[in-house]
Amino acid sequence: MPEIRAIPIDGIGEVRPGDDLAALMLTALKQKRRAFKQGDIVVVTHKIVSKAEGQIVPLASVMPSRKAVAWSQKYRLDPRLTEIAWSEGSIVRQHHGVTITETAHGFVCANSGVDASNVDGGASVVLLPRDPDQSAQKLHRALKRHLGFAVPVIISDSFGRAWREGLTEVAIGIAGMKPYRDSRGARDPYGYKLKVTLEAVADELAGMAGLACGKLTRLPACIIRGYPFQPGRGRARDLIRARERDMFR
Amino acid sequence: MPEIRAIPIDGIGEVRPGDDLAALMLTALKQKRRAFKQGDIVVVTHKIVSKAEGQIVPLASVMPSRKAVAWSQKYRLDPRLTEIAWSEGSIVRQHHGVTITETAHGFVCANSGVDASNVDGGASVVLLPRDPDQSAQKLHRALKRHLGFAVPVIISDSFGRAWREGLTEVAIGIAGMKPYRDSRGARDPYGYKLKVTLEAVADELAGMAGLACGKLTRLPACIIRGYPFQPGRGRARDLIRARERDMFR
Repeated sequence: MPEIRAIPIDGIGEVRPGDDLAALMLTALKQKRRAFKQGDIVVVTHKIVSKAEGQIVPLASVMPSRKAVAWSQKYRLDPRLTEIAWSEGSIVRQHHGVTITETAHGFVCANSGVDASNVDGGASVVLLPRDPDQSAQKLHRALKRHLGFAVPVIISDSFGRAWREGLTEVAIGIAGMKPYRDSRGARDPYGYKLKVTLEAVADELAGMAGLACGKLTRLPACIIRGYPFQPGRGRARDLIRARERDMFR
Repeated sequence: MPEIRAIPIDGIGEVRPGDDLAALMLTALKQKRRAFKQGDIVVVTHKIVSKAEGQIVPLASVMPSRKAVAWSQKYRLDPRLTEIAWSEGSIVRQHHGVTITETAHGFVCANSGVDASNVDGGASVVLLPRDPDQSAQKLHRALKRHLGFAVPVIISDSFGRAWREGLTEVAIGIAGMKPYRDSRGARDPYGYKLKVTLEAVADELAGMAGLACGKLTRLPACIIRGYPFQPGRGRARDLIRARERDMFR
């Protein structure tokens, strides 16, 4: 029976602008006498990617608009965070202090993915990487240079959903694998031709890594071992439903 | 480093109305000289739960309405499947041959979760279990009777999402564990108090099982080993966002 395992990478430590994430991961693994194997995937939370890329904004540097101040006071939010969230995306819905935006990348999420947790205690916020697919490509190439074989990379973030409570990890950047398992046109064991079975495996892999690397722990990366991914040029951008096909935007 | 593993349960075979799923799983494991361990979770696709509960409708028994026929012809759909999908839920959106409904349980999904794959080659469709939380409870209690210890049960289905392409497995029934990991009010390593970190781990666990048990294989159940779940009375129903809090219904 084929098993799939989620193995957290422990010991990466604090990530600072300019840091080499591939080197940090490989050093952390070596210290625990572990290593990447062929067939592995690595899932990295966007937080350390954004930090390495310097996508950090000190709240003291932000001058909120009057509109952002009025809205934030009503819901006891930090108007500076509101200001950044609004400027990083266009508003899709706003209700009871929650702002759902569409970011420049096309992601629909709360507050444009701007987040103050796991940064520096509340003085700064982290933005999403400017181009998470490109960030994934960069990390993917760096790992290949070190290892001599290709390890697909998924960059993840926690997004809310319509209709369902709670956050789940999703893939916001991908390199080295297809984001989908495509069963369309294949037949089930009863001979029935499957119609709409396009499975967003990159999101499920991000979620699996999220289970192994809890929010409160310092485990920002996770190896997925044993999943038969489909290699190839994949982009997380391809997981975004085009606006004209979307019934909920 | 704590690892999490997804272990498919192979050899369950064809499930028929009235079958005892707990017994089928335990027999399948025994044949492979495997067993449940304390701390395990089991994820079961709703398809075999619905089959065991007789939630199967032969399409030949369905008389579609004129409206269902007209809509289906336009998009080359089976009007009998359309008829059942419409009668199993209320319509949330309809566009280009896709019907998004809210089921009696409160799930928002395509075609009320009615599906012709992995049944009998297209002659019948399977409905969602009538009360998936109760189905999970029943299975949970049966496993406990056999094993002498409690194994949380998640019943899963593949749902589409707003804004993102592709399906992911989600939890539609739960017993023996909380559906969330709740970090609200906890502090990150920098001392920052986390605000909205309610993580829908039951959905992530369903997705993880989905990765190990592909759509085309006969693997309708999966053990998750190593995940530190929170025991307690949990319901998948609690993962549904209340209508009045939902900005997209």
